[in-house]
Amino acid sequence: MAKVLAVLGRGAIDPEQPIIRADDLGVLRGDGIFETLNVRGGEMFLLREHLVRMAASARRTEIDLPPYEALDELSEQARQAWLAHPDFDPDAEAALRIVATRGLEHGSEPTVYATIDPVPRERTLPRRDGLQVLTASSGVNADTRGQAPWLLGGAKLLSYATTMAVMRWAKSLGADDALWVTADGYCLEGPTSSLVWRDKDVLCTTPTDTGILPGTTSTYLLQHASKLGLRSEERLITPEKLTRVDGVWMTSSVRGVAFVTTLDGQELATDPEMHSELVKLSGFELPS
Amino acid sequence: MAKVLAVLGRGAIDPEQPIIRADDLGVLRGDGIFETLNVRGGEMFLLREHLVRMAASARRTEIDLPPYEALDELSEQARQAWLAHPDFDPDAEAALRIVATRGLEHGSEPTVYATIDPVPRERTLPRRDGLQVLTASSGVNADTRGQAPWLLGGAKLLSYATTMAVMRWAKSLGADDALWVTADGYCLEGPTSSLVWRDKDVLCTTPTDTGILPGTTSTYLLQHASKLGLRSEERLITPEKLTRVDGVWMTSSVRGVAFVTTLDGQELATDPEMHSELVKLSGFELPS
Repeated sequence: MAKVLAVLGRGAIDPEQPIIRADDLGVLRGDGIFETLNVRGGEMFLLREHLVRMAASARRTEIDLPPYEALDELSEQARQAWLAHPDFDPDAEAALRIVATRGLEHGSEPTVYATIDPVPRERTLPRRDGLQVLTASSGVNADTRGQAPWLLGGAKLLSYATTMAVMRWAKSLGADDALWVTADGYCLEGPTSSLVWRDKDVLCTTPTDTGILPGTTSTYLLQHASKLGLRSEERLITPEKLTRVDGVWMTSSVRGVAFVTTLDGQELATDPEMHSELVKLSGFELPS
Repeated sequence: MAKVLAVLGRGAIDPEQPIIRADDLGVLRGDGIFETLNVRGGEMFLLREHLVRMAASARRTEIDLPPYEALDELSEQARQAWLAHPDFDPDAEAALRIVATRGLEHGSEPTVYATIDPVPRERTLPRRDGLQVLTASSGVNADTRGQAPWLLGGAKLLSYATTMAVMRWAKSLGADDALWVTADGYCLEGPTSSLVWRDKDVLCTTPTDTGILPGTTSTYLLQHASKLGLRSEERLITPEKLTRVDGVWMTSSVRGVAFVTTLDGQELATDPEMHSELVKLSGFELPS
């Protein structure tokens, strides 16, 4: 179970206590949104950026999300409970998750809560060891979700069944992760991570008009790329071309910055020096 | 709230009591499956077919669903509680929903429960008044999901965010419902219903290899079509051709058999006599 649970309007409570009713649309329909962010040394990393993105998800799904200040306070309640928790270790990383469902089926306020859980070591090891990745078709073209608002591109939804399925599929074949590729052959993002690559002096990621989730870590890296002497750019790229760039990473708020070692079995160029710099720039640490 | 709640291993309990933990994958990831079926005169309609389909959904999602007998007993517990409920009316319809999530994030048995709720009159009126329907692209081609098991075609998932979004979209434009159409231009199904049409003496529905959910009501109608002097067939059809057939229906276990009056604003042929027969054949009643 999560180590800490804080519920909007109630504060921190026993995480084992059930808080969601059988008729909550979060479970009946996966109808809700969430954010997950890293807690290091007891501090929440990029909380503001995550809450801003959550508000964007709420607009796309027409969920009546509580105001920024209420979610900020909820996060702080969870963080305080974590600092006071016997398992709290200032040298270890934890993940704060903020969840908002649409509420009950016959109408209600959203159900909103936050949890904190330590990040297990197997989640941070890919920063050191890299990832073997398999491509999987998302089924849609690169421009489809931009034209079909009901497909909810760009929103971080609780409806993650296919996300979980593609990761099970990749792992069943001995890989570590998957990379969504459009039906017309362009790389999108990982199931729970953003795609970042270096092409000479340009740090690149996928354009958001493809319906990917705009990554907080990838956005941060591209915004600060000049510190590493790089320019930044959003680009469409095919898997075939991705195997010929100067380094490929999958970034997420919990796993951090992990480099890709193989794509569909083909070895990629790795760049240990640039990798260390990206990990450091984004505020993560390399596990020993 | 639901009128009745029965939880696997616990039986009927107060439906207002929260039963789902914050770290249940049903809410965190929409990671679970469900079925909804009609209860008429206190009897569950096509329960066996729904439980068989739920087992198929469980196989596709690798959820460790309890055996048939346990779900049958759970449904019966919910039904008995409904028969004893002060709001029970043998002349009214109710919906029984059976939900199974993958369980808790760090591993557990699935979370399994059943609810019963009366079917509101606005859900049954389309049987009498028909539906105005708008087409919406599913973004994927007709053959995509058959080739990409991670897209979980054919499974009835709790991840319904885009399903809910497309219905909000259709209603925001004054329509009653949507019809998913593939990127390559073929009709699939409604967000929560199957597509059925009559072309001369053939009752048709969409092929299941497109990744649609095989409808219990549509399957029942096609299996018994000979009683109406019709043959039955799975076919791919374009929206344009659908406007020129002899009658179009959207069928579901709760709403029943509703005819389509307009598709993207274009009036369709209706067939009141055939409609009455289909409603009767599937065991539904026309509301007054």
